[in-house]
Amino acid sequence: MVQATALPRNEEGIATALGVLKQRFGDRLQTGQAIREQHGHTTTWIANQAPDAVVFPESTEEVAQVMRICADHKVPVIPYGTGTSLEGHVNAPAGGVTVDLMRMDRILAVHPGDLDCVVQPGVTREALNTHLRDQGLFFPIDPGANASLGGMAATRASGTNAVRYGTMKDNVLSLEVVMPDGQVIRTGKRARKSSAGYDLTRLLVGSEGTLGLITELTLRLQGIPEAISSARCSFPTVDAACQAVMMTIQYGIPVARIELLDELSVKAANAYSHLGLPETPLLLLEFHGSEAGVAEQSETFGSIAEEFGGSDFAATTSTEERSRLWQARHDMYWASMGLRPGARGLSTDVCVPISRLAECVGATQARAAEMGLLAPIVGHVGDGNFHTLLLIDMENASEIAEADEFVGWLNDLAISMDGTCTGEHGIGQGKRPYLARELGPATKVMAAIKAALDPDNIMNPGKILS
Amino acid sequence: MVQATALPRNEEGIATALGVLKQRFGDRLQTGQAIREQHGHTTTWIANQAPDAVVFPESTEEVAQVMRICADHKVPVIPYGTGTSLEGHVNAPAGGVTVDLMRMDRILAVHPGDLDCVVQPGVTREALNTHLRDQGLFFPIDPGANASLGGMAATRASGTNAVRYGTMKDNVLSLEVVMPDGQVIRTGKRARKSSAGYDLTRLLVGSEGTLGLITELTLRLQGIPEAISSARCSFPTVDAACQAVMMTIQYGIPVARIELLDELSVKAANAYSHLGLPETPLLLLEFHGSEAGVAEQSETFGSIAEEFGGSDFAATTSTEERSRLWQARHDMYWASMGLRPGARGLSTDVCVPISRLAECVGATQARAAEMGLLAPIVGHVGDGNFHTLLLIDMENASEIAEADEFVGWLNDLAISMDGTCTGEHGIGQGKRPYLARELGPATKVMAAIKAALDPDNIMNPGKILS
Repeated sequence: MVQATALPRNEEGIATALGVLKQRFGDRLQTGQAIREQHGHTTTWIANQAPDAVVFPESTEEVAQVMRICADHKVPVIPYGTGTSLEGHVNAPAGGVTVDLMRMDRILAVHPGDLDCVVQPGVTREALNTHLRDQGLFFPIDPGANASLGGMAATRASGTNAVRYGTMKDNVLSLEVVMPDGQVIRTGKRARKSSAGYDLTRLLVGSEGTLGLITELTLRLQGIPEAISSARCSFPTVDAACQAVMMTIQYGIPVARIELLDELSVKAANAYSHLGLPETPLLLLEFHGSEAGVAEQSETFGSIAEEFGGSDFAATTSTEERSRLWQARHDMYWASMGLRPGARGLSTDVCVPISRLAECVGATQARAAEMGLLAPIVGHVGDGNFHTLLLIDMENASEIAEADEFVGWLNDLAISMDGTCTGEHGIGQGKRPYLARELGPATKVMAAIKAALDPDNIMNPGKILS
Repeated sequence: MVQATALPRNEEGIATALGVLKQRFGDRLQTGQAIREQHGHTTTWIANQAPDAVVFPESTEEVAQVMRICADHKVPVIPYGTGTSLEGHVNAPAGGVTVDLMRMDRILAVHPGDLDCVVQPGVTREALNTHLRDQGLFFPIDPGANASLGGMAATRASGTNAVRYGTMKDNVLSLEVVMPDGQVIRTGKRARKSSAGYDLTRLLVGSEGTLGLITELTLRLQGIPEAISSARCSFPTVDAACQAVMMTIQYGIPVARIELLDELSVKAANAYSHLGLPETPLLLLEFHGSEAGVAEQSETFGSIAEEFGGSDFAATTSTEERSRLWQARHDMYWASMGLRPGARGLSTDVCVPISRLAECVGATQARAAEMGLLAPIVGHVGDGNFHTLLLIDMENASEIAEADEFVGWLNDLAISMDGTCTGEHGIGQGKRPYLARELGPATKVMAAIKAALDPDNIMNPGKILS
């Protein structure tokens, strides 16, 4: 494990706040070691830094009470959803109180005429979509994990169909937020667009719980398309696949998903999901539209693919085949882990301009090979975002050091290509050194905003900013 | 004219800064009355508040110099593009220096493979689209006026095709900004998505020049669609038209534009553009896609329209007819003015959830009739945003007072319907009282951010926040 730096603890404040909270919340304040560690960070390679207590509020007012008590005693507050974030977002480097929001899991309203809904932060993506299905609606952001919507907003999540539907920043209409002083604000109304003042919605989306705690979200919804079809196509090289993606997007084909698996990922998927695909770079696609529309999209893509040496093109409107294909994509994490049982998977998350994608993926593969690292790649190529899953023996210090070097090299490469070290996972603890390299003086502006809104640095300290 | 409150002037600082600027910029610092007044606000009904000088920088470094000189002497800086904003955004209530950015009008790069471009703030929308045409690309935001892209970002502009392509917040990838202390920051890289820290891009888009001065924009582009078609359809009532719009959007028809003209607007358009249309509520539509796609969209819309009593449905793929139709829409301002020659047109800008739109438009028409105000309505109905153009005799104080009352009533109505007082024009000076009514305590968070980034309140003071 990699140890994140611990921050100074306010022992006296923590002790006092815990006493007050215990009185107020009774059994809904937990301090047992197991539950505290469960709420520290356990995914990927950052070591657990457990909070001093976990509280389970059931309303915005209760969250505000927790916040006011913690603010009074200058005690850190760490928001927690499903704990599926990947960069140490839920660790408690200065101790403090984790606010588990999963009891706030009500869908408060669905407005089909306005294509929006209002939910509490603990509603998961899948729960929302199950609820919406009968009304012919869906919420499009799909980060893979069945994450909470509050957490997805906090990390500015996206996923496989961002190429068509955007990221959380594009799909949150407004937020209710408990600010670090306990004040409850609403960042916007339910209108689909607004020019009313600073865009606090977008400032808070992606702020990783460092500026406030999201207690309610108004989300944009989409109508479930009349028809959905899938396609896959193998390519001789990653470069050829990327060229086909660029042409597809320039053509304005509104692909809903366009995902790349490199040779090694296809090999892993074949082994895990028995796909029997040629072990060369693969694109998986999904089209949404009318019956005629998806047929046309698929056909146009087929012609483009051919131009770039694509082979084994197969399209389908069968729900079963489609599910099988995308299940294989969703299982890629487990499939990749199968390449090296016992290893831990560490995911990178760079995103570069699409024109640099093939070059970036190629260099990544070459570097991994050179360093002897096993590192299958999957990519949201329509956005220029790809993940390398480094398979590392966490008992082996030199492997960890190599992985660390590799991650740093890749982040710097992406930044040098006018890209970012994180397309969708966020900065958390793990990527803080890269943020300054990527955005330079802009990080001082971020720090000024943080200091203005959270002068005592109690909202999820030690994340995003150093 | 309505007088905006003047703010205290820092006479000594202004005199000193002007001296230093004169030495540095020579003839590119102008202090003549005509040029100063031309850079104060003259549109709609807010009286002109001219700056003390206008400077014409030609580079980011020069803008930063102006900013540092003004910061040193605590002198207001007001950014200026084409001056087409509508709420007093370019007035100088505390005097100071207007920075005219129209000499920074270079298109610095176009990246067709990435569907983006990099421009200086003085490039206008039309200039950019003319430049892009040969490459099969376009920038979709169209607020009507041939505004500068810097100004469009600053006011979070949108317009007729936001329903499909979003607003400026969705189409700016990153910004270069001179901050109030003269520091130059870049808010992001050229990747299509990012989770790297606070979304300063979105914070600055719509900040109306109150947090910094935009000196460069990286913008998302679209491929020019293979086919474009237009349609128009008359409806018995505004309610029927709005019902058709809702159904169209729920169906997932990707309309590129869907605009409402009320009875009075159709009458004005008939008179001005000789359209010969039935004088009942009218929808104008535009579809973008493949040949088959636009035909299908148009046909599906036709069926929906019929369901809601639509008549005189006419679709066309002829470029000439399409231009004529949209020209009439773009000429609506002048057509409306023709209803009362000599009057001044004051535009409202409320935006409500679409399900409340018919009710809001109906109440607006009734109220205008009751007050005897001439007030044709056009609406970006796919977003729930509509403009009432009040035709007012500016020599008549009681008419002005009535118009003021009407605007306040309408803004409050929209807010009570979970909507906003401004869908796309911004707050400026004119809508400040409504911002607090709309967002309550969130405005304190905005004020805290403003104070943190601009402690001396020199960036476009007196706008957005009171």
